[in-house]
Amino acid sequence: MAQRRLFELCGADPDIRFSPYCWRIRMALAHKGLEAETVPWRFTQNEAIAFAGSRTVPVLQDGERTISDSYAIAEYLEATYPDRPALFPGREPGSLRFIASWADRVLMPALASLVVSDITDLLRESEKPYFIESREKRFGMPLAQVTAGREERLPEFRHLLQPLRAVLREQAFIAGAAPDYADYIIFGSFMWPRVVSPLVLLEADDPVQAWMDRMLDLHGGLARGMPARRAAG
Amino acid sequence: MAQRRLFELCGADPDIRFSPYCWRIRMALAHKGLEAETVPWRFTQNEAIAFAGSRTVPVLQDGERTISDSYAIAEYLEATYPDRPALFPGREPGSLRFIASWADRVLMPALASLVVSDITDLLRESEKPYFIESREKRFGMPLAQVTAGREERLPEFRHLLQPLRAVLREQAFIAGAAPDYADYIIFGSFMWPRVVSPLVLLEADDPVQAWMDRMLDLHGGLARGMPARRAAG
Repeated sequence: MAQRRLFELCGADPDIRFSPYCWRIRMALAHKGLEAETVPWRFTQNEAIAFAGSRTVPVLQDGERTISDSYAIAEYLEATYPDRPALFPGREPGSLRFIASWADRVLMPALASLVVSDITDLLRESEKPYFIESREKRFGMPLAQVTAGREERLPEFRHLLQPLRAVLREQAFIAGAAPDYADYIIFGSFMWPRVVSPLVLLEADDPVQAWMDRMLDLHGGLARGMPARRAAG
Repeated sequence: MAQRRLFELCGADPDIRFSPYCWRIRMALAHKGLEAETVPWRFTQNEAIAFAGSRTVPVLQDGERTISDSYAIAEYLEATYPDRPALFPGREPGSLRFIASWADRVLMPALASLVVSDITDLLRESEKPYFIESREKRFGMPLAQVTAGREERLPEFRHLLQPLRAVLREQAFIAGAAPDYADYIIFGSFMWPRVVSPLVLLEADDPVQAWMDRMLDLHGGLARGMPARRAAG
């Protein structure tokens, strides 16, 4: 059997996986019914994934093939395992680029502004300087300042989810009656705050929360098995 | 031959069609290679479409069938004419609800805040009171105030298009290598300001503008045949 390995971001605890992009692929693999050994990877371990020509995870090794970048991995899985359940709604994998773009350019920055300072606690001492320095450079301010007043900014964040909420009022999944990679893209983004932050982002009666619950139940409760930080806090 | 008629919004000039939702369907019909007589409809002509149980256009009459709501019409066309080019990327028409939701809840309000006051000029005197009153009620202020300072707000508007722009840097159409209903949804939204307003929304080197040009060329230049207000101004 060909070896399949997924390099996934973790912090001090190797079992706590919080990368939104890795979650997209973990769910995509489960959707296709493909087993993979998951390999914990930490922020400063550049040499461990240098073979992939990438500085970021996820990285997927599938037998002789190595693929990085979550969207490229999803396209690879679809092309390589076409007889398994489809990740893309049709022939054209580019058709989900808009939702990925919205996730990466609208949803992720908004989430970061609410939870990025919580991540530091999860990291090894040796990774903290890299993380803090690189993220403070990105935001142009101390991380505590990025997330300051976040409780007051929750209504604004929830408003940003309107396009998503409207869809989930009409149908069970973003893709329609059943989930596909569109759902995994957005779900991965939400797994990130779920695992790293005690902040409760969604109101209990939000259709987005009901969808999250459905997503957490998929594939034998795969994602529900990952401890949520808020549950512990 | 069964009669096919599309009721489309117009103003004083019956040939000037500016409804974003009607443009979605006009393009969808062309994509499927379906001819339709287009019937001009004006804001206060409720009785003319009362047979459809709708107060808004587009309304499509296709032989014995009457359908309203643009998304429902697109789904109807896909289901009724499955052997013609597909409007949806796969089996599940719900898969484009997110992009429609983004168009309706993010893009359209942003466009309205830039051009809504320009529409009044296009209307018959008899329709103006309805239009002004209903829109001022929606915005909670005079229409001139809604669009005030719009030139200064263009950078903010262009920033809002980032998720779209990133996709169109990577591929020719929102759907991928070829357009589908995802493209028509967004394109319809942009036809609205193009036809009603002299305001130039996009910078010349914006990938969104290049995509608009490709869309205007589709189906024998169908949409390019509609006069742009800025071209006259």
